Amino acid sequence: MAIIAHYLPILDWLGNYRKSDLSGDLIAGLIVTIMLVPQGMAYAMLAGLPPQVGLYASVLPLILYAMFGSSRTLAVGPVAMVSLMTASALAGLSGSDNQMAGALILALASGLMLFVMGVARLGFLANFLSHPVISGFTSAAALIIGFSQLKHLLGMEIPRSHLLTDIVGFVIREAESANIVTVALSVGLVALLLLWRGPLGALLRRAGMNPAWVGPLTKTGPLAVVILGAGLVWLFRLDVNAGVKIVGEIPAGLPTLNWQGIDLTMAQDLLPAAGLIALVGFVESVSVAKALASKRRQKIDADQELRALGVANIGAAFSGGYPVTGGFSRSMVNFTAGANTGLAAIVTAILIAFTLAFLTPLFHYLPKAALAAIIVVAVSGLVDFRSLFRTWRYNGLDGLSQLATFAAVLALGIEIGIMLGAALSIAFYLWRTSRPHMAIVGRVGETEHFRNILRHDVKTLPHVLALRVDENLYFANTRFLEDRLLAAVADQPRIKHLVLICSAINFIDASALESLENTVRALSEAGVTVHLAEVKGPVMDKLEKTDFLGHLGAGEVFLSTHDALAKLEKPLDPGPVI
Amino acid sequence: MAIIAHYLPILDWLGNYRKSDLSGDLIAGLIVTIMLVPQGMAYAMLAGLPPQVGLYASVLPLILYAMFGSSRTLAVGPVAMVSLMTASALAGLSGSDNQMAGALILALASGLMLFVMGVARLGFLANFLSHPVISGFTSAAALIIGFSQLKHLLGMEIPRSHLLTDIVGFVIREAESANIVTVALSVGLVALLLLWRGPLGALLRRAGMNPAWVGPLTKTGPLAVVILGAGLVWLFRLDVNAGVKIVGEIPAGLPTLNWQGIDLTMAQDLLPAAGLIALVGFVESVSVAKALASKRRQKIDADQELRALGVANIGAAFSGGYPVTGGFSRSMVNFTAGANTGLAAIVTAILIAFTLAFLTPLFHYLPKAALAAIIVVAVSGLVDFRSLFRTWRYNGLDGLSQLATFAAVLALGIEIGIMLGAALSIAFYLWRTSRPHMAIVGRVGETEHFRNILRHDVKTLPHVLALRVDENLYFANTRFLEDRLLAAVADQPRIKHLVLICSAINFIDASALESLENTVRALSEAGVTVHLAEVKGPVMDKLEKTDFLGHLGAGEVFLSTHDALAKLEKPLDPGPVI
Repeated sequence: MAIIAHYLPILDWLGNYRKSDLSGDLIAGLIVTIMLVPQGMAYAMLAGLPPQVGLYASVLPLILYAMFGSSRTLAVGPVAMVSLMTASALAGLSGSDNQMAGALILALASGLMLFVMGVARLGFLANFLSHPVISGFTSAAALIIGFSQLKHLLGMEIPRSHLLTDIVGFVIREAESANIVTVALSVGLVALLLLWRGPLGALLRRAGMNPAWVGPLTKTGPLAVVILGAGLVWLFRLDVNAGVKIVGEIPAGLPTLNWQGIDLTMAQDLLPAAGLIALVGFVESVSVAKALASKRRQKIDADQELRALGVANIGAAFSGGYPVTGGFSRSMVNFTAGANTGLAAIVTAILIAFTLAFLTPLFHYLPKAALAAIIVVAVSGLVDFRSLFRTWRYNGLDGLSQLATFAAVLALGIEIGIMLGAALSIAFYLWRTSRPHMAIVGRVGETEHFRNILRHDVKTLPHVLALRVDENLYFANTRFLEDRLLAAVADQPRIKHLVLICSAINFIDASALESLENTVRALSEAGVTVHLAEVKGPVMDKLEKTDFLGHLGAGEVFLSTHDALAKLEKPLDPGPVI
Repeated sequence: MAIIAHYLPILDWLGNYRKSDLSGDLIAGLIVTIMLVPQGMAYAMLAGLPPQVGLYASVLPLILYAMFGSSRTLAVGPVAMVSLMTASALAGLSGSDNQMAGALILALASGLMLFVMGVARLGFLANFLSHPVISGFTSAAALIIGFSQLKHLLGMEIPRSHLLTDIVGFVIREAESANIVTVALSVGLVALLLLWRGPLGALLRRAGMNPAWVGPLTKTGPLAVVILGAGLVWLFRLDVNAGVKIVGEIPAGLPTLNWQGIDLTMAQDLLPAAGLIALVGFVESVSVAKALASKRRQKIDADQELRALGVANIGAAFSGGYPVTGGFSRSMVNFTAGANTGLAAIVTAILIAFTLAFLTPLFHYLPKAALAAIIVVAVSGLVDFRSLFRTWRYNGLDGLSQLATFAAVLALGIEIGIMLGAALSIAFYLWRTSRPHMAIVGRVGETEHFRNILRHDVKTLPHVLALRVDENLYFANTRFLEDRLLAAVADQPRIKHLVLICSAINFIDASALESLENTVRALSEAGVTVHLAEVKGPVMDKLEKTDFLGHLGAGEVFLSTHDALAKLEKPLDPGPVI
């Protein structure tokens, strides 16, 4: 039973459901719905899909995640980054039927990948997207998203382009073709959103409102913008009178699925994009889930999250949606509005289904500019140059990864940008460990402590070199180590003993073992005996399985540097006077 | 002057040339020539090129390496592995003109890459070919080379194939089409080579010959095979009478170059192969050079080696050759025959040029089976399954890299096999470091030493958790560390202090710093204060540049675990009785 509950957490929380959790779940479910209806439509538009697809993706996936997810407060659904990646993956497909089929394939493929990764416990793959890469990607993606909405905000046709400079150039050249009413509407709605998000909260708090309510209320801006935008267009018939682009007819109810159009060639082409969507979506989702869980001392199981997000995306594919994941802002709202269990998400799903069944006619007059305004304000905070400077200052190579990812996503596209960034992080890590820090150490006073001779005032022996290597020994640094060991001894003919201090060596791979054997042999031919000190348990266990210790010849393995130096200094004793 | 001599080592050894070095250089040069003439022709045939190309590649490149190389005894020229890689790269080109043009491009491109890598000091790139990968590749390549010579050894046409099983199947099916005289010749010549290499040495030594001469003499087998093979064919006109395939007309003198046929598309297609040839050739060459240099306390400068091999290959391209590198067996012969300086290589080059000018008619009747016999015997020792077992026993993941490289080279081809192997080594390393060893430690008796509570009988404090993390903290293990830290504390509500022992942490990257900050915050919300102990100098320098230490709040940075525990145990003191 405990095992089943582990794979199906709903059994756990539904079985132990407390009445006291109900009001929080109901209220949070309602507030998230209020955010999700406009956001879902907006993000679907960002993904290049009809607005109702965003709502389709907000029913079944939420219920499935509530059943399988290990987080109780994560709000799953369409999010900005994944929508942008969907748009980028679908850009090559012509015709809305093809694009819709592509979106279903992306959801299905990324869902299957997530599920398989979860079953195979491959969640660690997400680790390879380092923080600088995610951060560089997020900033660049937010910029791309913002500029992609210019056409809706300005009411003009802008040719699709990869390069922001092309878009800006076109807008400047063709500025007079902008629809002035749309521009005015956009400016007004963006301003409203910003005011709603910032000053409104301060105002309500000063007016004495319960702070627990202020937070969620400030998140209802999108709903206000939708109501106001649609109201204005309907009132003045701005669509007919001023050419303001509207959402138009939205079919009521859930879609009838047509999986016959699925094309295997298309599926194959979309696989790499689906893989990246799965990885990026998982990283975003699990970070949010962990942050929320730790606030309440709950635990997140990364592999269970993979399976849950996988099932949610497969559900999205079979209910006419597109790729979903756990989003940051809606999850925060869900949490602060009092969600206690997955019931909040189920409430949201039911309310969205109700919206689809009965309320779609209300969105007919919704101007696309209103959705664009919601998108632009949502991502505006994600462009984060301060983080770049901070990373750069802490560590140049990490900063370089972040900058390269940012630049490559902007200049070469999302997939290439992320993969380049991930490859760079790995290459930089290998490069960094390929030339390890090494310290020649000496004894501190009369103690048993040994420190770097360059940083401390220590005593050394003329015929013994004690060298600490501060890195695992593996293929990328074997040649460097060989060179350093041979050079250290070549410069100092008096040295007869080399003590290799292994306190910071956590493992030695096969390449390094081979190289160490060669080095020990070469040093022995040069009259230098190699000893080891402070070898860690797991490393020693491995070495004992080989004949390496035999290669040491007269060399010994000492428990501590002190033991080694104490024994090796003896040849210097003057000896008894006869 | 010293700087010029560093970049042009010939100035160093030629300026200080001692008369006593001369005889060794002359003799070594002669003996290497005796090996190189048949080997050069054989390896050119292996590469799918006319035999004289192997001799062209043995003149100018040797002189250039003698001028630029930092090794004094390395014997540069055609070698088996690089010849096989050349054959594989040229397999897609039709027509011998195209193949020759391709060979020149490969030499030029790999030469330029090596030179640029040397100037940019990118020699560390070769480190990414780990020992298991090189070893797995060598075994597989030796098998491929051996089977590729079956057609010459059996005197039958065998359709080109990637898969050894195809070749074996074809040979069995079409066994009757083999040329029986060629088979007999092959068997005899292979047997002669094996006898020459093994029992001959023992015989000569027992006969009282100077051991210094026995070694080089046992390497003259190829010459004996060439003389005997060509003599037999000529004597009995086996080419006409028995259909034995011969080398035929070899043009005298150096080639007239025709670079007009160079095709940029072809050059582009060959670039990846040229890059791998450069890397593999460099690894083979620098390993031999280092092994020889350490025997005489000389030093090898890897970057200078890159430049020298680069110049040598560019020279090969401009003198009608194909990619060259420093080979293992000829270098060993050169060294043991007494080579003292690069003059030995220059002597070899002059003798090869003399051979090209006057002796090529002698090779007219040379049977291709003789060259194939030389190749097969040369590579037979390179198939090394014992190494695979040894690697596997020491470290499963390294063994898996080696096996995967071996299998992939055989099944998918050389380039893919090597790249897959390199990618696997890197992935395994990252995976290994992504779940670091961590130890909860306690005090050993009343000492200042702290050890793993699982391996030693130690004392711990109920409200303090001292945790040693045995790995660098970086993006691949941040999530694992987070989970472990939070879990360690979640299980034990009594814990108020967590001491993170950093003695095996050599650096903390930006991702890990971000993650540590989050963890410290989460733990602090759970009432646990985080302290650091034994932070290394370079790590501390970096941390001090950030506001991380501020995030620790009441947490402190202790010099040693002892200091930390001594201070933190105080709250347990009963306090003075009032």
